[in-house]
Parts: sequence; structure tokens; C-alpha cells
Amino acid sequence: MIGSLLQADFEEIIRDKDWDTLRDALSELDPSDIAELLIELPTDIEGIIFRILPRDRATEVFEHLPVEYQKSLVVSLSLGQMQQILNEMTPDDRTRLFEELPAETVRTMLETLSPEELQTARQLLGYPEGTAGRYMTPEYVALPPDITAAEALARIRRTGRGKETLNIVYIVTDKGKLLEDLRLGTLVLAEPETMIGDIEERAPVSIPASAPVGDVIASFERYDRAALPVVDKDGMILGIVTHDDVLEFAEERATKEIQKLGGSEALDAAYRDVSFRSMFKKRAVWLAVLFLGETLTASAMGRYEHAIVSVPMLSLFVPLIISSGGNSGSQATSIIIRSIALQELRLRDWAYVMRRELLSGLALGAFLGLIGAIRIILWYQLGLQSYDDHAYFMAVTVWISLIGVVMFGTLAGSMLPFILRRVGLDPATASAPFVATLVDVTGLVIYFSIASVLMYELMHRRI
Amino acid sequence: MIGSLLQADFEEIIRDKDWDTLRDALSELDPSDIAELLIELPTDIEGIIFRILPRDRATEVFEHLPVEYQKSLVVSLSLGQMQQILNEMTPDDRTRLFEELPAETVRTMLETLSPEELQTARQLLGYPEGTAGRYMTPEYVALPPDITAAEALARIRRTGRGKETLNIVYIVTDKGKLLEDLRLGTLVLAEPETMIGDIEERAPVSIPASAPVGDVIASFERYDRAALPVVDKDGMILGIVTHDDVLEFAEERATKEIQKLGGSEALDAAYRDVSFRSMFKKRAVWLAVLFLGETLTASAMGRYEHAIVSVPMLSLFVPLIISSGGNSGSQATSIIIRSIALQELRLRDWAYVMRRELLSGLALGAFLGLIGAIRIILWYQLGLQSYDDHAYFMAVTVWISLIGVVMFGTLAGSMLPFILRRVGLDPATASAPFVATLVDVTGLVIYFSIASVLMYELMHRRI
Repeated sequence: MIGSLLQADFEEIIRDKDWDTLRDALSELDPSDIAELLIELPTDIEGIIFRILPRDRATEVFEHLPVEYQKSLVVSLSLGQMQQILNEMTPDDRTRLFEELPAETVRTMLETLSPEELQTARQLLGYPEGTAGRYMTPEYVALPPDITAAEALARIRRTGRGKETLNIVYIVTDKGKLLEDLRLGTLVLAEPETMIGDIEERAPVSIPASAPVGDVIASFERYDRAALPVVDKDGMILGIVTHDDVLEFAEERATKEIQKLGGSEALDAAYRDVSFRSMFKKRAVWLAVLFLGETLTASAMGRYEHAIVSVPMLSLFVPLIISSGGNSGSQATSIIIRSIALQELRLRDWAYVMRRELLSGLALGAFLGLIGAIRIILWYQLGLQSYDDHAYFMAVTVWISLIGVVMFGTLAGSMLPFILRRVGLDPATASAPFVATLVDVTGLVIYFSIASVLMYELMHRRI
Repeated sequence: MIGSLLQADFEEIIRDKDWDTLRDALSELDPSDIAELLIELPTDIEGIIFRILPRDRATEVFEHLPVEYQKSLVVSLSLGQMQQILNEMTPDDRTRLFEELPAETVRTMLETLSPEELQTARQLLGYPEGTAGRYMTPEYVALPPDITAAEALARIRRTGRGKETLNIVYIVTDKGKLLEDLRLGTLVLAEPETMIGDIEERAPVSIPASAPVGDVIASFERYDRAALPVVDKDGMILGIVTHDDVLEFAEERATKEIQKLGGSEALDAAYRDVSFRSMFKKRAVWLAVLFLGETLTASAMGRYEHAIVSVPMLSLFVPLIISSGGNSGSQATSIIIRSIALQELRLRDWAYVMRRELLSGLALGAFLGLIGAIRIILWYQLGLQSYDDHAYFMAVTVWISLIGVVMFGTLAGSMLPFILRRVGLDPATASAPFVATLVDVTGLVIYFSIASVLMYELMHRRI
């Protein structure tokens, strides 16, 4: 909002080359607002604003830019500016930027880091992508257990400046083993003479460095803390993950799930920031796979061509039957995928879910079938459609088929995410269109098989 | 994990009625772990554990339980226990519990609150559901601007105990107008004699009480703060919203979007906690609506029955054509819904999105059509399918139809969320199955219209 209000003013100031006014105006804005301005302004003005900012503000603004913008900006900066910014970025933000850049550019950029910063960056980069170790920052305050609260506050005053957060400080042994976490607020409230190891606090909670991001989100949801410490397998503290990163992880994860559920690859950037070409690729691949799967329906229909030729009214209900299976499967898969992501359902729950979804499918299929049968008979009685005077046969065929197809839909939709998770794939790959395609082909076979049994005489009398 | 490891031990301890061991074991656990234990243990044991906990621990554990469990537990507690728990819950958690309970139960429970707590609860309940005012807590530390850092710390020591967070304190005028927010960490680092109004800090950011939860999430994502103040239209501070609530909001919102996108109503609880009956209702309503919509396909197919009778091979490609439209629509709608939710796209962007999606549809449709045409001609040349010796006619019909259907799919899928937002509905109501159903009916009309033009002679020669 701030951005769009001021955008016109800024363009005018820059057109007038009124640098002093620009400097003053910028000094009143929050770095995140300046970042938003940069995004909305034309690229040439972007550069001017960036150069006019004091160095430390420039770094702050840079950190607020989306990674996509950082990538393009980083290339156009002078080596000096780049070095400055890289050195001052918090390690976890820097890691995220590095992840997005080609490996060669990363190597060039790592060379511009100060030796100390370089060590930090390398350490962070050693953990696999998508694990807690990759996103932690080593910028926390560590204190020994055997000092008083007053001394602890004095130490924080000496060493705390520039840390990612002071909200929580960590009590560690001199070997670096995590003993407790202590909120700064609790420390401030404590009697000054109390040993900080004795200040009553919550049970310590930590995250293994190898924990996947999903576990990190779950820990934050469960323990309501502003930051959680990351430890190695010996309980040594390596760094911390902060609440703002976790909110970002949770939103990114949901975005990926939603895009995959809709049947495209994850876009990995905002709609506007994805090029037409890249968007086409991410959508076309899955559409083509689904299309090829769906050509099986043409083969299945071909197999039942004799049935269609002898009883043409059968073809009328093909879209209705198969779409009902697809819809029920799409419901089931979206519900189950999200439950697995939120760890409400585990792999071991598959049998429970299967029983429940089969029952749901039976109930939903019977319900839809009833509507379908009533609709067919009603149209027949009202004289709207003749059904070759076999409306009741048709109604029963549709009803039974819907029970079968909807049950198969809920079963396939609910079990696929479990199967994918079991073989180590992302459950969200079981997209709604994927399930629908699977159910379409099977649905046709179910429908025509049931019709062949129920309408055997009808089909063979005709030929 | 802790829960499943210890569950068996606890059941044994309780079977042995070894209350002292139980008390000791419980005192070593984090309240959130006890809450998890309660959920996994049988209901009768649940009660025993709850009664054995010291009062203040019981409240903490209660706050960690999912609202569904709180609801059932609250009814079975004694009036004394209930009063205790309600009085000690943080106001925002209490508000969330109240929201889930029937209005009458809420009234009874409000009567058990102390007069001061009651005022707080009523104040919180005055804001509409889904707005910032509904979730704020008034438990923050407010300080005047004209005291020194040392004095501020002394005041926090006197008044800070029991506040929701001390991570950020708020500098307000004596009338209650918000001037600045100040991190406790910055305050601790400041020279003791500095006036707190002069401590250099970030530009103040606040949320209007009437702001929808989506704006709250966006503000937290943008400003990376542990808490944000909620103000009325005069800039008076009313309360604060904390990062843990916002993570919960973001996850809840994503869950709702995913469930709606999959074509069911939002479940509003974990899979296991939704009764079969309630699950059936939430899924059956939309399935029935979609089914009724889809019966239009039977009508559309009925309208083209003459075409199917004269050129039966047309029916072979019906599922392929309409599902491709549905799939491309489902992709488009999921991408756009999420972009709108994340405020990456605004209502005013509809024309830009429309142009882009029409182009995408053209490219994707042409691509799929090419695959389809090649497949038809290949099968014909290989002698797998005869297509009544009109394979080339069929291939062209399928190709052109796919361009039309996929373009309509991406158009409908991308514009529906905008239209729904425009008329004040949730864009996520444009579920993948909903778009697919819409596209199915239209897709049939497009397909048969194109076939009627291209195969005019074929159809009329036959009859």
C-alpha cells in the first residue's frame, strides 16, 4: 500500500534529480517499504535508489527483496557493493540466495566473503537442501549456566549487537552442548543474583540439523517459540531457526502443495515473476503426461464401441460417470495430502484411512447414484428423453456404476498419497487431475462392464 | 514421538495406581508433550492425568490441546477447574475456544470469568470473526516515551510477569496512542540513560483491528517481527498479535484453500477429528452440486446423439477432450487462487492475467492437440484403429477442439477466482472439480460444434 501511494512521488523526485529530497524521503521509510518501492519502480530508477542509500540501509533493503530480484540485482552491482552486501546479510538469507543461483556464480560470490563469513556460509551449505541445518543462523547468544542473571545481561550488552535475535538466549556448556533456552524476557524478570541455570524455564526443545523442514514447522506449531535451536546428534548447538523463516517455509510449502494439487509443477516464484516460457514448461509437462494417460480412455471406449453402437444412450452418461469418480477422488486426495503434510496422518494410518474412505465412497456413491437415477426416471416420465424405453435399466446401471466409480475414486485418491510417501516421493504429486485421469480410465471399464451385464439382452438383441 | 514412546509406560503407571511416580514423570515433561500424551491415551486415563497436574500446569496443558479436545474436556471438568482454566488462559486462546462452542455454552462459561477477565473477553469478542481484533491479546507491556532505558527495564520487571510476550514493548502516549515498538533486545543493549523514545528503532508498523487475517499474515511476512500491534482508526493501541498465532493462521488458511480446491468444504479440524457424518456432509454437498452441473453433459450429449449415431468414433474422444480442458482449468485456477491469497495478484490484475492465460491456453492446447493428432494418425497407420478411414478428419477435429477447449479451460480457471473475489466470495470456491465441470459441458459443445462443421458431409452422408 505504502509503495503504490508513494510510487508516483518518487518517480517525480527522481525525474527532477532532487537527490537530497530523495535521501530524506528514503530515510523515513522502513527497509521493507523501500524494497517494495524498488520492485514497483522501473529498473533504471531501481539502480539510482539503491546507490543513494547508505551502505547498511542498502543491505537491509536487499535482504527484504524477493530472491528473484536479488538474483538480477546482484549481477548489476559493483564488486564493492556486492561484497558489502554479502558480508552483512544474515547467513540464512544468504544461504537462500545462494541456493537460487547457478553453482558457478555461487563460487565467485563466496570468494568475495570475508574469511570468517566464508566459514559460516560453507558450514551452512554442508547440510542437504530442505533440512534445518540449511536454514539456521549461527548468530545467537550463548551463555554458560553458572553466571548470574545480572552478569548474563551485561554479557548480552557486550556481545548481543548484530545477532539475528535476542529474544531467546541459549545456555550451553563450555563444550557447546545445549542445556536450556531462556527467553530474554524471563532473564530480565529474574532476580539479578540468580544463577541463570537455575531460572525456572520451559523444558528445552531442539531440532536435529538433519530434520526436514516439515518437522521444523511442526515443532514451531507445537512449542510456540520465537526461535528453536538446531543441534547435531551429540546435542551440540549449531545454530537457531527463527519464527520469520518458519512462516516463510510454511507458506512456501502450502504454495507448492496447492500448485502440485492443481496439476502443475511448483512454480517456485510469484505468478508475475515466472516467464511465459518457464510457466509453459511447468504446466505442459504434466498436461502431456495426463493427456497420454487419458488417451487410454479412447482405447477403453474403443473396446466398448460395439456397446455404444448397439445402445447409444450409454455414451450420454460417460462424462457424468467418470467426472463423479474424478471429483470424489480429487476431494479425497486433497484432504489426505494436507493431513499428511501437517503430520495429522502418518504412513501407518493407511489402513484406517482406507477403511474410512471406502465407507465414504460407498455412502457418497449411493447418494449421487440416487440423484442420477431419479433424474433419469424423471426425464423419462416427463417425456424429455426416451432412453429407448429402457429408462429403468439405464437408471439402475448409472446407480450401480456410480457406487463403483466413486468408491474407486475415494480409494485411489486417498491411497495414492500414502503410496507416493512410502516410495519416497512427495505425496502432493498425486494431483487432483492425476487422480481424475486414473479414475476416468477405470471408471469407463467399471461403467461398461456393469452395463454389459445389466443390458446383455439389450445389446445382443440389437445386433 | 515422545508421546508414542512413553504412552505404554504411562498406561502401566496408571494401572498400578502409582500416583507419586505419575506426578514425578509428568513434572519432567513439557506441557505440549503432556497434551500429546492426553490425546493418545484412552479417555478415562485422560481425566486422571488432568486431575493429578498442579493447577497452573493443568492450564498450560489445556492451552496446548487442540480446540476439539478442549471442547469435550471443558464439559467434563468441575466448575472450579473450569473457572481456574478459563481465568488463566491467554485471552486470544480463550477467544478461539469460545468461537468453537455453541453460543449458549459460551454465555455460561463467560459467567465463570472474573469481572476483569470478562471485560477482556467481551472486548475481544466485539470484532467480527476473521479480523485482527478477534485474535489480539491485550497482554503486552506499554511504556511512556519519556523514561530512560534503565527505568523502562525496571518497569518491565514490575509489570511484565504473565504478559503474552516481552519480546517487544510498546511506547505509547498517556492517552494510549501508539508511538513506537521497541524490541526488548534493543532496550537491553541501549545506554541506560537514553530516553526510550530516542532509542533508534525501526519505523512503527501496526495492523488495523478490522484488517482481515490475510492482511495480518502479509504484514508478518513483510516485516519479520515477533509481534505486531493492533490499533483502532485513531492509532490507539488495542492489543498485539503474536507470531505463533500467525503461523497457525497461515497453516489454517492453506488447509482451507487446499480442501476447497479439492472440491469439498473446509473440514475445520484434523481428518481424525471429523466425524463420519460431518465429513460426509462436507463432501456430499459439493459432489451433489457438481453432479447436477455435470448432468448437463448428458443433456449436451443428448443434443449431439445424431452425430454420435452417424459418426460413433466421435464418442471415443469425448473423455480425452473434456478432461484436457478440466486439467488445464484446474492448473490455472490453483495457481491463481494461491497468488490472490498471497496478495501477489490483485483484483485489478485480471486483464493482465486474462491475456496471459489466453496465450498459455493457446500454446498448451496446440501442444496437446499435436500429441493427440499424432496419436490418431499413428494408430491409423499402424492399423490399430480404423477411424472408418477418416483418421485425418478425426485428427484435425481433435487438434482444433483441444485448442478451443484448453483455451476455454485456462480462461475459466483463471477468471473464476477473480469473479468470485469481485462479488465478495472466497476465490478458493472455484475448486478444481468446479472448473472441470464447467469446462466439461462447454468442452462438449466446442468439440461437437467443430466436428459438425468439419465432418458435415460425413454425418449427412451416413443418415
